[in-house]
Amino acid sequence: MDVAVLERSLGYAFRDSELLKTALTHRSHGANHNERLEFLGDGVLNCVVAAALFQRFQSLPEGDLSRLRANLVRQDTLHQLALSLNLGDFLLLGEGEMKSGGHARPSILADALEALFGAIYLEAGFEAAAQVIQQLLASHLSAIVPGQSMKDPKTRLQEWLQGQRKPLPQYQLLDTLGAAHAQKFHVRCVVESLKFSTEGIGSSRRIAEQDAAQKALEALTP
Amino acid sequence: MDVAVLERSLGYAFRDSELLKTALTHRSHGANHNERLEFLGDGVLNCVVAAALFQRFQSLPEGDLSRLRANLVRQDTLHQLALSLNLGDFLLLGEGEMKSGGHARPSILADALEALFGAIYLEAGFEAAAQVIQQLLASHLSAIVPGQSMKDPKTRLQEWLQGQRKPLPQYQLLDTLGAAHAQKFHVRCVVESLKFSTEGIGSSRRIAEQDAAQKALEALTP
Repeated sequence: MDVAVLERSLGYAFRDSELLKTALTHRSHGANHNERLEFLGDGVLNCVVAAALFQRFQSLPEGDLSRLRANLVRQDTLHQLALSLNLGDFLLLGEGEMKSGGHARPSILADALEALFGAIYLEAGFEAAAQVIQQLLASHLSAIVPGQSMKDPKTRLQEWLQGQRKPLPQYQLLDTLGAAHAQKFHVRCVVESLKFSTEGIGSSRRIAEQDAAQKALEALTP
Repeated sequence: MDVAVLERSLGYAFRDSELLKTALTHRSHGANHNERLEFLGDGVLNCVVAAALFQRFQSLPEGDLSRLRANLVRQDTLHQLALSLNLGDFLLLGEGEMKSGGHARPSILADALEALFGAIYLEAGFEAAAQVIQQLLASHLSAIVPGQSMKDPKTRLQEWLQGQRKPLPQYQLLDTLGAAHAQKFHVRCVVESLKFSTEGIGSSRRIAEQDAAQKALEALTP
Protein backbone atom coordinates (compact mmCIF):
# COMPACT_ATOMS: atom_id res chain seq x y z
CA MET A 1 0.00 0.00 0.00
CA ASP A 2 1.08 3.54 -0.69
CA VAL A 3 1.81 5.25 2.61
CA ALA A 4 0.84 8.59 1.08
CA VAL A 5 -2.77 7.42 1.45
CA LEU A 6 -2.22 6.87 5.17
CA GLU A 7 -0.45 10.22 5.50
CA ARG A 8 -3.39 11.96 3.88
CA SER A 9 -5.87 10.36 6.29
CA LEU A 10 -3.61 11.30 9.21
CA GLY A 11 -3.18 14.84 7.97
CA TYR A 12 0.57 14.51 8.42
CA ALA A 13 3.35 13.72 5.95
CA PHE A 14 6.49 12.16 7.42
CA ARG A 15 9.86 13.61 6.45
CA ASP A 16 11.68 10.50 7.70
CA SER A 17 10.28 7.46 5.90
CA GLU A 18 12.36 5.11 8.06
CA LEU A 19 10.70 6.49 11.17
CA LEU A 20 7.26 5.93 9.63
CA LYS A 21 8.29 2.38 8.72
CA THR A 22 9.40 1.69 12.29
CA ALA A 23 6.07 2.97 13.62
CA LEU A 24 4.26 0.52 11.34
CA THR A 25 6.46 -2.47 12.19
CA HIS A 26 5.18 -5.07 14.64
CA ARG A 27 7.76 -6.86 16.78
CA SER A 28 7.03 -10.10 14.92
CA HIS A 29 8.57 -8.53 11.80
CA GLY A 30 12.02 -7.65 13.06
CA ALA A 31 14.24 -5.93 15.58
CA ASN A 32 13.42 -2.41 14.47
CA HIS A 33 9.81 -2.52 15.69
CA ASN A 34 7.37 0.00 17.08
CA GLU A 35 7.22 -0.81 20.79
CA ARG A 36 9.39 2.07 21.98
CA LEU A 37 7.48 4.51 19.78
CA GLU A 38 4.24 3.11 21.18
CA PHE A 39 5.48 3.89 24.72
CA LEU A 40 6.23 7.46 23.65
CA GLY A 41 2.98 7.87 21.74
CA ASP A 42 0.93 6.62 24.66
CA GLY A 43 2.33 9.44 26.78
CA VAL A 44 1.68 12.02 24.07
CA LEU A 45 -1.87 10.77 23.50
CA ASN A 46 -2.73 10.88 27.20
CA CYS A 47 -1.41 14.40 27.54
CA VAL A 48 -3.16 15.71 24.42
CA VAL A 49 -6.46 14.17 25.46
CA ALA A 50 -6.12 15.53 29.01
CA ALA A 51 -5.44 19.02 27.66
CA ALA A 52 -8.30 18.85 25.15
CA LEU A 53 -10.77 17.75 27.83
CA PHE A 54 -9.48 20.33 30.30
CA GLN A 55 -9.98 23.14 27.79
CA ARG A 56 -13.29 21.93 26.44
CA PHE A 57 -15.07 21.19 29.71
CA GLN A 58 -14.21 24.10 31.96
CA SER A 59 -16.56 23.13 34.74
CA LEU A 60 -16.15 19.35 34.90
CA PRO A 61 -14.43 18.08 38.04
CA GLU A 62 -11.24 16.04 37.86
CA GLY A 63 -13.00 12.68 38.35
CA ASP A 64 -15.21 13.19 35.30
CA LEU A 65 -12.28 14.35 33.20
CA SER A 66 -10.38 11.19 34.19
CA ARG A 67 -13.28 8.95 33.20
CA LEU A 68 -13.66 10.71 29.86
CA ARG A 69 -9.97 10.40 29.19
CA ALA A 70 -9.97 6.69 30.02
CA ASN A 71 -12.74 6.25 27.46
CA LEU A 72 -10.92 8.13 24.73
CA VAL A 73 -7.53 6.44 25.11
CA ARG A 74 -8.65 2.84 25.62
CA GLN A 75 -7.96 0.13 23.08
CA ASP A 76 -11.53 0.04 21.72
CA THR A 77 -11.41 3.70 20.74
CA LEU A 78 -7.92 3.47 19.26
CA HIS A 79 -8.92 0.35 17.36
CA GLN A 80 -11.88 2.16 15.80
CA LEU A 81 -9.66 5.08 14.81
CA ALA A 82 -7.15 2.64 13.31
CA LEU A 83 -9.94 1.02 11.29
CA SER A 84 -11.02 4.43 9.99
CA LEU A 85 -7.44 4.91 8.75
CA ASN A 86 -7.29 1.38 7.26
CA LEU A 87 -4.13 1.09 9.31
CA GLY A 88 -4.08 -2.70 8.99
CA ASP A 89 -3.21 -2.39 5.30
CA PHE A 90 0.05 -0.62 6.14
CA LEU A 91 1.38 -2.80 8.96
CA LEU A 92 4.57 -4.82 8.65
CA LEU A 93 4.09 -8.14 10.41
CA GLY A 94 6.04 -11.37 10.75
CA GLU A 95 4.83 -14.30 8.68
CA GLY A 96 3.10 -16.16 11.49
CA GLU A 97 1.33 -13.05 12.71
CA MET A 98 0.28 -12.21 9.17
CA LYS A 99 -1.23 -15.65 8.57
CA SER A 100 -3.14 -15.57 11.84
CA GLY A 101 -4.82 -12.27 10.99
CA GLY A 102 -2.58 -9.89 12.92
CA HIS A 103 -3.55 -7.05 10.55
CA ALA A 104 -6.97 -7.03 12.14
CA ARG A 105 -6.02 -7.66 15.76
CA PRO A 106 -7.28 -4.75 17.88
CA SER A 107 -4.22 -4.60 20.14
CA ILE A 108 -1.79 -4.55 17.20
CA LEU A 109 -3.78 -1.80 15.48
CA ALA A 110 -4.14 0.30 18.62
CA ASP A 111 -0.42 -0.02 19.41
CA ALA A 112 0.60 0.95 15.88
CA LEU A 113 -1.60 4.03 16.05
CA GLU A 114 0.07 5.10 19.29
CA ALA A 115 3.45 4.46 17.66
CA LEU A 116 2.46 6.82 14.83
CA PHE A 117 1.64 9.52 17.40
CA GLY A 118 5.04 8.93 19.01
CA ALA A 119 6.79 9.19 15.66
CA ILE A 120 5.06 12.48 14.81
CA TYR A 121 6.03 13.88 18.21
CA LEU A 122 9.61 12.85 17.64
CA GLU A 123 9.82 14.35 14.18
CA ALA A 124 7.71 17.48 14.52
CA GLY A 125 7.11 18.13 18.23
CA PHE A 126 4.19 18.17 20.61
CA GLU A 127 1.94 20.63 18.80
CA ALA A 128 2.11 18.71 15.53
CA ALA A 129 1.22 15.45 17.28
CA ALA A 130 -1.56 17.22 19.19
CA GLN A 131 -3.09 18.49 15.97
CA VAL A 132 -3.20 15.02 14.40
CA ILE A 133 -4.65 13.45 17.54
CA GLN A 134 -7.28 16.14 18.03
CA GLN A 135 -8.39 15.87 14.45
CA LEU A 136 -8.71 12.08 14.67
CA LEU A 137 -10.65 12.34 17.91
CA ALA A 138 -12.73 15.34 16.84
CA SER A 139 -16.00 13.46 16.40
CA HIS A 140 -15.47 11.57 19.66
CA LEU A 141 -14.75 14.83 21.47
CA SER A 142 -17.71 16.68 20.04
CA ALA A 143 -20.03 13.74 20.82
CA ILE A 144 -19.34 14.21 24.53
CA VAL A 145 -22.16 15.88 26.40
CA PRO A 146 -21.08 16.49 29.99
CA GLY A 147 -23.25 14.59 32.44
CA GLN A 148 -24.68 12.48 29.67
CA SER A 149 -21.28 11.51 28.37
CA MET A 150 -20.64 9.21 31.31
CA LYS A 151 -23.36 6.92 29.92
CA ASP A 152 -22.62 4.69 26.96
CA PRO A 153 -24.34 5.26 23.58
CA LYS A 154 -26.74 2.28 23.92
CA THR A 155 -28.00 3.61 27.25
CA ARG A 156 -28.34 7.13 25.89
CA LEU A 157 -30.20 5.95 22.78
CA GLN A 158 -32.57 3.89 24.93
CA GLU A 159 -33.22 6.83 27.26
CA TRP A 160 -33.79 9.19 24.37
CA LEU A 161 -36.31 6.80 22.75
CA GLN A 162 -38.07 6.34 26.10
CA GLY A 163 -38.29 10.13 26.37
CA GLN A 164 -40.01 10.11 22.94
CA ARG A 165 -42.33 7.28 24.12
CA LYS A 166 -40.96 4.99 21.42
CA PRO A 167 -40.14 1.27 21.76
CA LEU A 168 -36.53 0.18 22.37
CA PRO A 169 -34.12 -0.29 19.45
CA GLN A 170 -33.25 -3.78 18.19
CA TYR A 171 -29.69 -4.95 17.52
CA GLN A 172 -28.97 -7.58 14.85
CA LEU A 173 -25.71 -9.35 14.16
CA LEU A 174 -25.09 -9.03 10.42
CA ASP A 175 -21.84 -10.96 10.16
CA THR A 176 -18.54 -11.81 11.76
CA LEU A 177 -15.29 -11.34 9.87
CA GLY A 178 -11.75 -12.51 10.43
CA ALA A 179 -10.05 -15.32 12.34
CA ALA A 180 -11.23 -16.35 15.81
CA HIS A 181 -8.87 -14.15 17.86
CA ALA A 182 -9.10 -11.10 15.59
CA GLN A 183 -12.77 -11.01 14.73
CA LYS A 184 -14.71 -8.01 13.57
CA PHE A 185 -18.40 -7.89 14.37
CA HIS A 186 -20.85 -6.17 12.11
CA VAL A 187 -24.22 -5.27 13.60
CA ARG A 188 -27.31 -3.27 12.76
CA CYS A 189 -29.26 -1.06 15.15
CA VAL A 190 -32.90 -0.82 14.10
CA VAL A 191 -35.28 1.86 15.38
CA GLU A 192 -38.45 0.33 13.95
CA SER A 193 -40.78 3.13 15.05
CA LEU A 194 -38.77 5.70 13.12
CA LYS A 195 -38.04 3.41 10.15
CA PHE A 196 -34.39 4.11 10.84
CA SER A 197 -31.30 1.96 11.12
CA THR A 198 -27.52 2.29 11.40
CA GLU A 199 -24.65 -0.17 11.21
CA GLY A 200 -21.70 -0.56 13.51
CA ILE A 201 -18.43 -2.43 13.58
CA GLY A 202 -16.12 -3.45 16.39
CA SER A 203 -13.88 -6.06 17.96
CA SER A 204 -16.75 -7.41 20.06
CA ARG A 205 -20.49 -7.57 19.56
CA ARG A 206 -20.95 -5.10 22.42
CA ILE A 207 -18.53 -2.59 20.90
CA ALA A 208 -20.15 -2.90 17.47
CA GLU A 209 -23.56 -2.27 19.05
CA GLN A 210 -22.25 0.81 20.87
CA ASP A 211 -20.83 2.04 17.58
CA ALA A 212 -24.20 1.61 15.83
CA ALA A 213 -26.03 3.25 18.74
CA GLN A 214 -23.62 6.20 18.64
CA LYS A 215 -24.33 6.70 14.94
CA ALA A 216 -28.07 6.51 15.58
CA LEU A 217 -27.76 9.12 18.33
CA GLU A 218 -25.79 11.44 16.07
CA ALA A 219 -28.39 11.14 13.32
CA LEU A 220 -31.54 11.27 15.46
CA THR A 221 -30.75 13.74 18.24
CA PRO A 222 -30.02 17.43 17.73
CA MET B 1 5.61 33.24 51.93
CA ASP B 2 6.76 35.16 48.90
CA VAL B 3 5.88 33.15 45.79
CA ALA B 4 8.87 34.68 44.00
CA VAL B 5 11.01 32.28 46.06
CA LEU B 6 9.03 29.34 44.73
CA GLU B 7 9.18 30.69 41.18
CA ARG B 8 12.97 30.94 41.44
CA SER B 9 13.28 27.32 42.58
CA LEU B 10 10.96 26.22 39.78
CA GLY B 11 12.83 28.27 37.21
CA TYR B 12 9.54 29.71 36.00
CA ALA B 13 7.78 33.00 36.77
CA PHE B 14 4.01 33.01 36.35
CA ARG B 15 2.38 35.83 34.41
CA ASP B 16 -1.04 35.03 35.84
CA SER B 17 -0.85 35.16 39.63
CA GLU B 18 -4.42 33.88 39.97
CA LEU B 19 -3.48 30.75 38.05
CA LEU B 20 -0.51 30.18 40.35
CA LYS B 21 -2.79 30.66 43.35
CA THR B 22 -5.26 28.09 42.00
CA ALA B 23 -2.43 25.60 41.52
CA LEU B 24 -1.45 26.04 45.17
CA THR B 25 -4.99 25.77 46.54
CA HIS B 26 -6.14 22.50 48.09
CA ARG B 27 -9.80 21.61 47.79
CA SER B 28 -10.22 22.09 51.55
CA HIS B 29 -9.56 25.82 51.05
CA GLY B 30 -12.29 26.71 48.58
CA ALA B 31 -14.06 26.13 45.31
CA ASN B 32 -11.25 27.41 43.13
CA HIS B 33 -8.88 24.54 43.93
CA ASN B 34 -6.15 22.70 42.07
CA GLU B 35 -7.71 19.34 41.20
CA ARG B 36 -8.41 20.07 37.54
CA LEU B 37 -4.91 21.49 37.10
CA GLU B 38 -3.53 18.38 38.78
CA PHE B 39 -5.34 16.23 36.18
CA LEU B 40 -3.78 18.28 33.41
CA GLY B 41 -0.33 18.33 35.02
CA ASP B 42 -0.34 14.58 35.52
CA GLY B 43 -0.77 14.15 31.76
CA VAL B 44 1.98 16.65 30.99
CA LEU B 45 4.36 15.05 33.50
CA ASN B 46 3.81 11.56 32.12
CA CYS B 47 4.44 12.72 28.59
CA VAL B 48 7.56 14.73 29.43
CA VAL B 49 9.03 11.85 31.40
CA ALA B 50 8.22 9.35 28.63
CA ALA B 51 9.92 11.59 26.07
CA ALA B 52 12.96 12.20 28.28
CA LEU B 53 13.44 8.47 28.89
CA PHE B 54 12.86 7.64 25.23
CA GLN B 55 15.53 10.10 24.13
CA ARG B 56 18.02 9.29 26.87
CA PHE B 57 17.93 5.50 26.69
CA GLN B 58 17.93 4.70 23.01
CA SER B 59 18.36 0.97 23.44
CA LEU B 60 16.05 0.21 26.38
CA PRO B 61 12.96 -1.82 25.51
CA GLU B 62 9.47 -0.52 26.19
CA GLY B 63 9.01 -2.56 29.40
CA ASP B 64 12.06 -1.01 31.04
CA LEU B 65 11.04 2.49 29.95
CA SER B 66 7.61 1.91 31.50
CA ARG B 67 9.13 0.78 34.79
CA LEU B 68 11.48 3.77 34.89
CA ARG B 69 8.61 6.12 34.16
CA ALA B 70 6.46 4.62 36.90
CA ASN B 71 9.32 5.25 39.32
CA LEU B 72 9.78 8.86 38.28
CA VAL B 73 6.12 9.89 38.37
CA ARG B 74 5.01 8.09 41.53
CA GLN B 75 3.97 9.97 44.65
CA ASP B 76 7.23 9.29 46.53
CA THR B 77 9.32 10.97 43.86
CA LEU B 78 6.97 13.93 43.49
CA HIS B 79 6.84 14.30 47.26
CA GLN B 80 10.62 14.50 47.42
CA LEU B 81 10.68 17.11 44.65
CA ALA B 82 7.98 19.08 46.47
CA LEU B 83 10.08 19.00 49.66
CA SER B 84 13.09 20.29 47.73
CA LEU B 85 10.94 23.25 46.63
CA ASN B 86 9.55 23.79 50.17
CA LEU B 87 6.20 23.61 48.44
CA GLY B 88 4.36 23.06 51.75
CA ASP B 89 5.11 26.66 52.75
CA PHE B 90 3.12 27.99 49.78
CA LEU B 91 0.00 25.83 49.94
CA LEU B 92 -3.45 27.25 50.66
CA LEU B 93 -5.34 24.79 52.85
CA GLY B 94 -8.62 24.79 54.75
CA GLU B 95 -8.41 25.25 58.49
CA GLY B 96 -8.95 21.62 59.43
CA GLU B 97 -6.40 20.40 56.91
CA MET B 98 -3.93 23.01 58.09
CA LYS B 99 -4.26 21.97 61.75
CA SER B 100 -3.84 18.30 60.92
CA GLY B 101 -0.55 18.89 59.11
CA GLY B 102 -1.80 18.95 55.52
CA HIS B 103 1.21 21.05 54.49
CA ALA B 104 3.40 18.00 54.97
CA ARG B 105 1.08 15.32 53.60
CA PRO B 106 2.79 13.56 50.71
CA SER B 107 -0.34 13.27 48.56
CA ILE B 108 -1.22 16.96 48.96
CA LEU B 109 2.33 18.00 48.09
CA ALA B 110 2.59 15.66 45.09
CA ASP B 111 -0.79 16.81 43.76
CA ALA B 112 0.10 20.49 44.10
CA LEU B 113 3.35 19.92 42.23
CA GLU B 114 1.43 18.30 39.37
CA ALA B 115 -1.01 21.22 39.43
CA LEU B 116 1.95 23.60 39.02
CA PHE B 117 3.06 21.64 35.96
CA GLY B 118 -0.47 21.88 34.58
CA ALA B 119 -0.58 25.62 35.20
CA ILE B 120 2.74 26.19 33.41
CA TYR B 121 1.51 24.14 30.44
CA LEU B 122 -1.66 26.21 30.33
CA GLU B 123 0.12 29.52 30.47
CA ALA B 124 3.26 28.87 28.44
CA GLY B 125 2.78 25.61 26.53
CA PHE B 126 4.28 22.16 26.46
CA GLU B 127 7.92 23.08 25.96
CA ALA B 128 7.96 25.48 28.93
CA ALA B 129 6.44 22.84 31.20
CA ALA B 130 8.85 20.23 29.85
CA GLN B 131 11.81 22.44 30.70
CA VAL B 132 10.69 22.92 34.30
CA ILE B 133 9.97 19.22 34.77
CA GLN B 134 13.24 18.08 33.20
CA GLN B 135 15.23 20.45 35.36
CA LEU B 136 13.50 19.26 38.54
CA LEU B 137 14.04 15.62 37.61
CA ALA B 138 17.57 16.13 36.27
CA SER B 139 19.36 14.43 39.14
CA HIS B 140 16.88 11.56 39.16
CA LEU B 141 17.32 11.13 35.41
CA SER B 142 21.09 11.22 35.51
CA ALA B 143 21.17 8.76 38.43
CA ILE B 144 19.58 6.10 36.20
CA VAL B 145 22.01 3.48 34.98
CA PRO B 146 20.23 1.16 32.53
CA GLY B 147 20.15 -2.41 33.76
CA GLN B 148 21.18 -1.34 37.22
CA SER B 149 18.44 1.22 37.46
CA MET B 150 15.77 -1.44 37.79
CA LYS B 151 17.18 -2.30 41.21
CA ASP B 152 16.49 0.01 44.12
CA PRO B 153 19.33 1.98 45.74
CA LYS B 154 19.53 -0.23 48.87
CA THR B 155 19.99 -3.32 46.71
CA ARG B 156 22.59 -1.59 44.55
CA LEU B 157 24.53 -0.30 47.57
CA GLN B 158 24.52 -3.78 49.10
CA GLU B 159 25.71 -5.35 45.86
CA TRP B 160 28.41 -2.76 45.41
CA LEU B 161 29.72 -3.32 48.97
CA GLN B 162 29.65 -7.10 48.45
CA GLY B 163 31.68 -6.55 45.30
CA GLN B 164 34.22 -4.69 47.43
CA ARG B 165 34.12 -7.51 50.06
CA LYS B 166 32.86 -5.10 52.69
CA PRO B 167 30.16 -5.78 55.30
CA LEU B 168 26.58 -4.61 54.68
CA PRO B 169 25.50 -1.06 55.54
CA GLN B 170 23.47 -0.35 58.67
CA TYR B 171 20.34 1.82 58.71
CA GLN B 172 19.36 3.79 61.83
CA LEU B 173 16.14 5.68 62.44
CA LEU B 174 17.16 9.15 63.65
CA ASP B 175 13.73 10.64 64.23
CA THR B 176 10.16 10.89 63.07
CA LEU B 177 8.55 14.26 62.42
CA GLY B 178 4.99 15.40 61.91
CA ALA B 179 1.53 14.11 62.80
CA ALA B 180 0.69 10.42 62.50
CA HIS B 181 -0.74 10.50 58.96
CA ALA B 182 1.84 12.89 57.54
CA GLN B 183 5.05 11.66 59.11
CA LYS B 184 8.51 12.28 57.83
CA PHE B 185 11.15 9.69 58.64
CA HIS B 186 14.75 10.65 59.06
CA VAL B 187 17.33 7.87 58.82
CA ARG B 188 21.07 7.37 58.62
CA CYS B 189 22.88 4.89 56.42
CA VAL B 190 26.21 3.86 57.95
CA VAL B 191 28.98 2.17 56.00
CA GLU B 192 31.18 1.32 59.00
CA SER B 193 34.03 -0.20 57.00
CA LEU B 194 34.50 3.04 55.06
CA LYS B 195 33.79 5.33 58.04
CA PHE B 196 31.09 6.84 55.88
CA SER B 197 27.46 7.78 56.45
CA THR B 198 24.61 9.62 54.75
CA GLU B 199 21.17 10.74 55.86
CA GLY B 200 17.84 10.33 54.12
CA ILE B 201 14.31 11.57 54.52
CA GLY B 202 10.98 10.24 53.30
CA SER B 203 7.32 9.56 53.97
CA SER B 204 8.10 6.01 55.14
CA ARG B 205 11.09 4.43 56.78
CA ARG B 206 11.73 2.40 53.64
CA ILE B 207 11.69 5.46 51.41
CA ALA B 208 14.01 7.35 53.75
CA GLU B 209 16.43 4.41 53.71
CA GLN B 210 16.35 4.30 49.90
CA ASP B 211 17.07 8.02 49.88
CA ALA B 212 20.08 7.60 52.18
CA ALA B 213 21.33 4.62 50.16
CA GLN B 214 21.02 6.63 46.94
CA LYS B 215 23.16 9.40 48.43
CA ALA B 216 25.74 6.87 49.60
CA LEU B 217 25.86 5.36 46.11
CA GLU B 218 26.36 8.75 44.54
CA ALA B 219 29.20 9.58 46.91
CA LEU B 220 30.94 6.20 46.93
CA THR B 221 30.62 4.89 43.38
CA PRO B 222 32.16 6.49 40.32
